[in-house]
Amino acid sequence: MPTPGTRGRRPAGSETRAAIETAARRRFAEVGYPRTTMRAVAADAGVDPRLITHFFGSKQQLFVAVVELPFDPETTFDALLTGDGADVGARLADFLLDLLENPRTRSTMLSVIRAAASEEEAASQIRELLSTRLLGPLAQRVGADQPELRAALLSSQVVGLAFARHVVGFPALRADDRSSLANLLAQVFNVYLLGGPAPSSRSRK
Amino acid sequence: MPTPGTRGRRPAGSETRAAIETAARRRFAEVGYPRTTMRAVAADAGVDPRLITHFFGSKQQLFVAVVELPFDPETTFDALLTGDGADVGARLADFLLDLLENPRTRSTMLSVIRAAASEEEAASQIRELLSTRLLGPLAQRVGADQPELRAALLSSQVVGLAFARHVVGFPALRADDRSSLANLLAQVFNVYLLGGPAPSSRSRK
Repeated sequence: MPTPGTRGRRPAGSETRAAIETAARRRFAEVGYPRTTMRAVAADAGVDPRLITHFFGSKQQLFVAVVELPFDPETTFDALLTGDGADVGARLADFLLDLLENPRTRSTMLSVIRAAASEEEAASQIRELLSTRLLGPLAQRVGADQPELRAALLSSQVVGLAFARHVVGFPALRADDRSSLANLLAQVFNVYLLGGPAPSSRSRK
Repeated sequence: MPTPGTRGRRPAGSETRAAIETAARRRFAEVGYPRTTMRAVAADAGVDPRLITHFFGSKQQLFVAVVELPFDPETTFDALLTGDGADVGARLADFLLDLLENPRTRSTMLSVIRAAASEEEAASQIRELLSTRLLGPLAQRVGADQPELRAALLSSQVVGLAFARHVVGFPALRADDRSSLANLLAQVFNVYLLGGPAPSSRSRK
């Protein structure tokens, strides 16, 4: 369907947008990302499909806009940052492994990652999701220098773990004994959140 | 095109297979993964397209089978493992960042990752590529315990960095100053290659 000429029409109000979001959230949750169509979302919301394009752009962009985080960021950060500071990496590793072991939250994460891999346009919104809503605020609250770099590296490991474990499918990442995996991840998250310059500081391009 | 009934035919010899590999390698390099077709590879190799399916399966599987590693693993491992053992993470970080800064090698890595994201069947071959040919042998040569787990975690960070930097596109991962990025990565690679149990060993599910 070609992009309609929405530029000249007065955009519908926030109620319409909210109706689309509600319908999309329900569809994505019920039938999954691949089987959700813009047409079905529009029918559920009682709007013209072109309004979805107008408000959200592509299906991927709609998905990222309405994706329900499987946790409340503020509450989660409070929990992660409470207690011994040296254990923040361990708490984050446990939190991440719990998300990946729960089929519903794992499915949400993998849908977001696959959308980013296949659609250039979705990548920027996923970047916003990770850096603005999730790991950026966490890195800032920890108070380390270069929070943007640290948040991006944390994101790279979180995305990489989900990808390696559930898309590429390394058996060692799905072993019954999760303690070794959690311990190594905990140390790595501590490096990204708390680590200073490398112990060996020999100059290198 | 439906899968042809190749089961009953006597497979062609290794020369045919080699001709297909040579043609595919050249096509992928010259026009890139998306614009390479099985039909063109078959024409270049002078074989029936169904022979490619017979020998290699899908286009993704053909790609992974013939992908030219942008370096020789054995020589690379020798270089990475020569010198101060505490600097192995730093050498690996530099090596990885060099690969990602070179447009040709970056393109190869991203093609492999995108193939894994979109095709279930390609994922297992990519797993073999990473664990059998690359990071598995490296982890084994370092001599740490649980080399499979360490290789899988290394793979997750390598794939995750390429994905976060060049697909999701975090600006902080592409900053002009690469030393901070290299330093944090170096510490993380050291954890995965050399790290023991987490310093804080409080029991946790």
